[in-house]
Amino acid sequence: MAVRVDLNISLDGYATTTDQTPEHPFGQDWGRLVGAYAATRTFRERVLLETGGEGTTGVDDKYAQAYFDEIGAEIMGAGMFGLHNFPDDPDWQGWWGEEPPFRVPVYVLTHTPRPLIEMANGTRFEFLTASPEEALDLATETAAGKDVRVGGGPTVVKSFLEAGLVDQLHVGITPILLGRGINLWEGLRGLEDAYDVSAETAESGVVHLTFRG
Amino acid sequence: MAVRVDLNISLDGYATTTDQTPEHPFGQDWGRLVGAYAATRTFRERVLLETGGEGTTGVDDKYAQAYFDEIGAEIMGAGMFGLHNFPDDPDWQGWWGEEPPFRVPVYVLTHTPRPLIEMANGTRFEFLTASPEEALDLATETAAGKDVRVGGGPTVVKSFLEAGLVDQLHVGITPILLGRGINLWEGLRGLEDAYDVSAETAESGVVHLTFRG
Repeated sequence: MAVRVDLNISLDGYATTTDQTPEHPFGQDWGRLVGAYAATRTFRERVLLETGGEGTTGVDDKYAQAYFDEIGAEIMGAGMFGLHNFPDDPDWQGWWGEEPPFRVPVYVLTHTPRPLIEMANGTRFEFLTASPEEALDLATETAAGKDVRVGGGPTVVKSFLEAGLVDQLHVGITPILLGRGINLWEGLRGLEDAYDVSAETAESGVVHLTFRG
Repeated sequence: MAVRVDLNISLDGYATTTDQTPEHPFGQDWGRLVGAYAATRTFRERVLLETGGEGTTGVDDKYAQAYFDEIGAEIMGAGMFGLHNFPDDPDWQGWWGEEPPFRVPVYVLTHTPRPLIEMANGTRFEFLTASPEEALDLATETAAGKDVRVGGGPTVVKSFLEAGLVDQLHVGITPILLGRGINLWEGLRGLEDAYDVSAETAESGVVHLTFRG
């Protein structure tokens, strides 16, 4: 059992974008940041629920497949689930539609818990106020020997990294400079001391770095 | 003729280190930042003047060789030459001994010029107070069709990048987090728009990124 993180970041370390508008709720930078991942066959099948077999099948797709392999539970922040965007909508069920890609119990960390949401495909969103350690204990028990992913956003990921709770960190580095947002690396000087780091480049230009504890 | 930059940076974008002490004038972080480059056969022959044929000959060495190829003149800042470390020593001739690796005219940008220094091997240090554009005009004329390198430090490099004067930027990214120093990427949002970017990983773990204009 391992605690795993996967994030897309820019060359200058930003894991979020800041150019959101009502017309572009994720912002145009977001499309550039995650474009190579969103183009993979795995993303198109698992997240977009496409069935045509379209999408890239190279190095980026290898990491996209690994993203979903052997995960038994997920932890995410309220922001990633969308509670900051839709705080007053009691029916908000996340960004992912009727069949979210997770297919496992998801623990959403929030200071204002709401009732559990059961989806059709094995995904279950459970809201709780908990420290990283407490959430991880719960997710580990639920995962029953499989891995736990800390999904994001970056502030939540950083709290788990700072607490030394992450066994494997994979970042897909898109070679663009965003210059603003939440910087994954800030405050993590010397993080590499606890890991072996390896790198692989994808056909898309994305550089995949993996920190293994 | 092209204007080229080559820098070693950390994963979080720092091109300088800050842990210098009298006993370690470059600091221990510096050794980690440039270690793979300093281990190449090219560096050992060209900079350390070793003749035993030692050093790595893989991807890092390929970039180290390219570093010196086809350069006709170099521009560097006062800090890189060492004037900030030895401002009161009129005999200071740089960090590189009797046979500096440059072997071409080097223009050192400084607000307090000093007399020209002719070295034995074709290297010449000429001190001037000039804007990036003025220095580049002079270096371009001197290079006579060959390339001009902007050698560093990062503050000088950033001034050339911000002015849109750099044709090719190569960074060797060492997968360590320094967390402090001068960040190459800060203030350069959107830099990639003017370049094609490609990536290559070295056996050492360093990721070589090249921006080609």
